[in-house]
Amino acid sequence: MIALGINQISKAALQRLPTYVTYLKSLPADAPDHISATAIAAALGLGEVQVRKDLAAATTGGRPKVGYVVKNLIKELDQFLGFNSLSEAVLVGCGKMGRAVLDYRGFSCYGLKIVAGFDIDPALVGSSSSGKKILPMQKLKGVCTCNNIRLAVIAVPEDQAQAVCDELVACGIRGIMNIAPVHLNVPAGVVVRYENLAIEMALLAGQVETRFQEERLVK
Amino acid sequence: MIALGINQISKAALQRLPTYVTYLKSLPADAPDHISATAIAAALGLGEVQVRKDLAAATTGGRPKVGYVVKNLIKELDQFLGFNSLSEAVLVGCGKMGRAVLDYRGFSCYGLKIVAGFDIDPALVGSSSSGKKILPMQKLKGVCTCNNIRLAVIAVPEDQAQAVCDELVACGIRGIMNIAPVHLNVPAGVVVRYENLAIEMALLAGQVETRFQEERLVK
Repeated sequence: MIALGINQISKAALQRLPTYVTYLKSLPADAPDHISATAIAAALGLGEVQVRKDLAAATTGGRPKVGYVVKNLIKELDQFLGFNSLSEAVLVGCGKMGRAVLDYRGFSCYGLKIVAGFDIDPALVGSSSSGKKILPMQKLKGVCTCNNIRLAVIAVPEDQAQAVCDELVACGIRGIMNIAPVHLNVPAGVVVRYENLAIEMALLAGQVETRFQEERLVK
Repeated sequence: MIALGINQISKAALQRLPTYVTYLKSLPADAPDHISATAIAAALGLGEVQVRKDLAAATTGGRPKVGYVVKNLIKELDQFLGFNSLSEAVLVGCGKMGRAVLDYRGFSCYGLKIVAGFDIDPALVGSSSSGKKILPMQKLKGVCTCNNIRLAVIAVPEDQAQAVCDELVACGIRGIMNIAPVHLNVPAGVVVRYENLAIEMALLAGQVETRFQEERLVK
């Protein structure tokens, strides 16, 4: 289960949660049962307040002076991040970006797995990338329905994205991560998230510009 | 100039803005001087209210019954999106994901350009991807300072990301897009954005789960 709460936590905090889990799981077997936010913060080079806030958003929290029970904290973080129940997804479009996503190893930290890639290009079909097969589009419906898959990534060229989107919806997909830089029309009940690196970069450029202007005002 | 306002508009709207620009620029030379939100919405298969809202967020807007002056609308959208003053960036880490980003063609829609990639791997250095050279790390400082570059993308393995980040900051970089799935510590005045596809997918899975639960409640 990916907890409902995952949408109520900041992305920066989500980014840090797997770091906490990795650290907590790396503690020696004879380490104390409890750990403080101060100790976690010191070990990871983070602020104490930030650690406390992050853990409060994802778990039932620690107790003053006592801290967190390590094994409970691991269990709650694992549950929050969906380690305990894998969400599977398919990916359509195995060009450079698509294959980079197929190969991306960060998904498992969040209980996610891309089971296969799909493409119309016969030159790509039949090969595999990081152990994941690239299958022809004809197999999309079978793979999605047999495995009850609800999530998909679209990484096709923008002029093909809407057609692929329609096909995915017909295969029972309910959540789409769209990497193609184009708006998609979907029926009610289907969620689309846009992953557009250019937009993220533009927002970054805007933030840097804002900082510069603020600094100029201070001077 | 990327307008200050770019941080105050939704990502979904930002996603649609280049579509408006492309459409408006494709209108024939003898088309009327004015255009209505209704006409734009119909041409692009979008909702009228959405078009009106998107354009209001990025431009000074149209006038009731008259609509928008096409050439002014294009000018304002271009300015908003930063077409008129290119922001340049460097990219460090030219593995699969890094090269996919180097090759990504969506940046120009938002007035962005990645000028070069950098890597420590001698096998990659000297080659080029989509016409962009992959240079050795020793050239990073020179390229950044000579071109007054303030933005960078980090696409190195996570255990090298902090060291690369420190180096970029020393080169005068003020905004970092971090694709490595790891938290970065930066001095005050430097902005980091995290581009973590796994987090976006986890949020998508959470949204889909929420929808399912809401539907169950309705039934």
